[in-house]
Amino acid sequence: MPSLIVLLTDFGLEDEYVGTMKGVITGINPKAQIVDLCHNVAPQDILEGAYILYSSYKYFPPKTVFVVVVDPGVGSERRIICLRTKSHTFLAPDNGILGLVLTKERPTFLVDVSNKKYFLPEVSATFHGRDIFAPVAAHLSLGLNPSKLGERLEKIKEIALPRPMQLPGGILRGEVIHVDRFGNLITNINHGLVSGIPEILSITIGDNKIYRLSRSYQDGRPGDLLALFGSSGHLEIAINQGSAKERLNVSRGEKVTIRYRK
Amino acid sequence: MPSLIVLLTDFGLEDEYVGTMKGVITGINPKAQIVDLCHNVAPQDILEGAYILYSSYKYFPPKTVFVVVVDPGVGSERRIICLRTKSHTFLAPDNGILGLVLTKERPTFLVDVSNKKYFLPEVSATFHGRDIFAPVAAHLSLGLNPSKLGERLEKIKEIALPRPMQLPGGILRGEVIHVDRFGNLITNINHGLVSGIPEILSITIGDNKIYRLSRSYQDGRPGDLLALFGSSGHLEIAINQGSAKERLNVSRGEKVTIRYRK
Amino acid sequence: MPSLIVLLTDFGLEDEYVGTMKGVITGINPKAQIVDLCHNVAPQDILEGAYILYSSYKYFPPKTVFVVVVDPGVGSERRIICLRTKSHTFLAPDNGILGLVLTKERPTFLVDVSNKKYFLPEVSATFHGRDIFAPVAAHLSLGLNPSKLGERLEKIKEIALPRPMQLPGGILRGEVIHVDRFGNLITNINHGLVSGIPEILSITIGDNKIYRLSRSYQDGRPGDLLALFGSSGHLEIAINQGSAKERLNVSRGEKVTIRYRK
Repeated sequence: MPSLIVLLTDFGLEDEYVGTMKGVITGINPKAQIVDLCHNVAPQDILEGAYILYSSYKYFPPKTVFVVVVDPGVGSERRIICLRTKSHTFLAPDNGILGLVLTKERPTFLVDVSNKKYFLPEVSATFHGRDIFAPVAAHLSLGLNPSKLGERLEKIKEIALPRPMQLPGGILRGEVIHVDRFGNLITNINHGLVSGIPEILSITIGDNKIYRLSRSYQDGRPGDLLALFGSSGHLEIAINQGSAKERLNVSRGEKVTIRYRK
Repeated sequence: MPSLIVLLTDFGLEDEYVGTMKGVITGINPKAQIVDLCHNVAPQDILEGAYILYSSYKYFPPKTVFVVVVDPGVGSERRIICLRTKSHTFLAPDNGILGLVLTKERPTFLVDVSNKKYFLPEVSATFHGRDIFAPVAAHLSLGLNPSKLGERLEKIKEIALPRPMQLPGGILRGEVIHVDRFGNLITNINHGLVSGIPEILSITIGDNKIYRLSRSYQDGRPGDLLALFGSSGHLEIAINQGSAKERLNVSRGEKVTIRYRK
Repeated sequence: MPSLIVLLTDFGLEDEYVGTMKGVITGINPKAQIVDLCHNVAPQDILEGAYILYSSYKYFPPKTVFVVVVDPGVGSERRIICLRTKSHTFLAPDNGILGLVLTKERPTFLVDVSNKKYFLPEVSATFHGRDIFAPVAAHLSLGLNPSKLGERLEKIKEIALPRPMQLPGGILRGEVIHVDRFGNLITNINHGLVSGIPEILSITIGDNKIYRLSRSYQDGRPGDLLALFGSSGHLEIAINQGSAKERLNVSRGEKVTIRYRK
């Protein structure tokens, strides 16, 4: 059975870019099953793309081919890589966007995508999504062995993703890495980081202090400010039936501090 | 043949939420055919979701499984229900969102979705779309009998949807329940309510009076304010080649009054 | 094998309109493969729709059925046409929206879509996308010969699309016809128009002058203003890692002037 192709881009839905990629894919694999993961990653925002992929990839069936095109370096000498893990295949620019997935998964195969045989005959300098990513993904979904795509690589590029810091005196400091449609502020502090802590004293964001962890957005009363571990296993700041983004007027990068008893 | 799965949510397209649901569905039913009805219902807006479902469901083929996730109560004790009518299956939180469909359709089967066998192994408190709705829908699309999902129920929760009122003296008063992309103001006054009226004298919205019904958005001249029964059979206020929302500066809830000769 | 159906509309994704069309299509052709090209064409903007179709259609496989519903005249006496080229089938209102495709392709068959047998039984005056375009497209995807749809036509309606002008003294003047999500300003000057020019002296937009053509968005340094031929073969004004739309504060219709040595 041909594999599922999942698209994650910053192309938005106002232009022909995503549709054109699907045209190319369907021309090569007429039975391709294509799922849109998200196309509204902020333009050229590698961290946001990395988070969206990280929080969803494991819900897709084995052999899924993920096509990730958040690619500020298109047209430069940046590489395109094809990376396999035990279950999935990832096709992406080598710009660090697979970095969060690789905190959970071990690569089993990594290749520099360079074999023009699997590209469109004419490759523009501005739209590799159409001219390289789409046709290569279609061939992969038909079962092409990634070793045909180019030279094996030893390692991918790493980017400095913001990581939470342990500070002296029982302090853990992270930051908001994604704001979702509901205004929930999702941080880079995942459940594993706090699971050994005996007691959380407070969670601070801006001038706001929260003194307990909630279980769902329904905790307390409408309008209450909440901290909870959300569906991706990360600490979120939320408002019961409201938008934390609007109430606190914060955006990505805002610091979040946990004080705890050691 | 597996059934069509139709998704209606308030998840938006800025996050991974909708894509993740499709990953879960495809993992259980690799041949699932999934159609997006709409994901831009205003966050937690049950009435808007109810209207969008109501105005479209009957255009889908028999056996379609509708998955409706506008769910302000996620994580609380609200139930999830599976409701069957003669032609379709609906999976939704028990929060009244099926209320408008049920003005047209009679339930033939109703069940409290609680059998964890058809959920993901781990159910979060914040994303039942992924952990409950998606896997249950996938099983239904494969032909699962809804009686396996849980206890039969006698009735669903009703919410107070705004209903048009007949007032003394030949007055019918309704309100705007949806504003579409073109700025058309769609009311809760459907064609049946006025079909017995011999003559409409005026239609009032804010300070504006309209004295006749139009047949299409092309009636009169560009810029003319129009009242017509639109594609869902409901009274709409529109502007020929313009946006009634912008011109009249009104939003959902605005009153619309029909005066008629009895 | 049933053909691919590609949808291009100005319906947006906030309403049930696109989803309802898919319901109708799937009811007639349960195996229909449907691709969204774009639904965010500005409301009733025929030129933008024409550009999006023109810059993508040739990337879709042979026999694709394109369904184009940017239709300010819905409900008036405007015709709906079905036009075939050597490779593709186009279903569209006869309002000029196929005009840019027809600068590249020759029609092989043209018909006035009027045979009610292939419409929904009840046709509204406001939503022909659902009641005419969707069912006709589904029948075409099943192999229906377009000659069954109505009378043959000799020619389609032309609209005055803005065309670049050659002015005396080595001047070529065009304009911005589309602004994409990244803020790139795409003009109606295509590569063919300048391919015979020995030397470009300057490219002017507003108060800004650019003295050379770039190859990709990566040319020069971040923040540099660039002119390049983009993925559709048209001249674009762009900013390295930025938005030309925001920096120059211009929109569609802005003039772009090339001065060249003859």
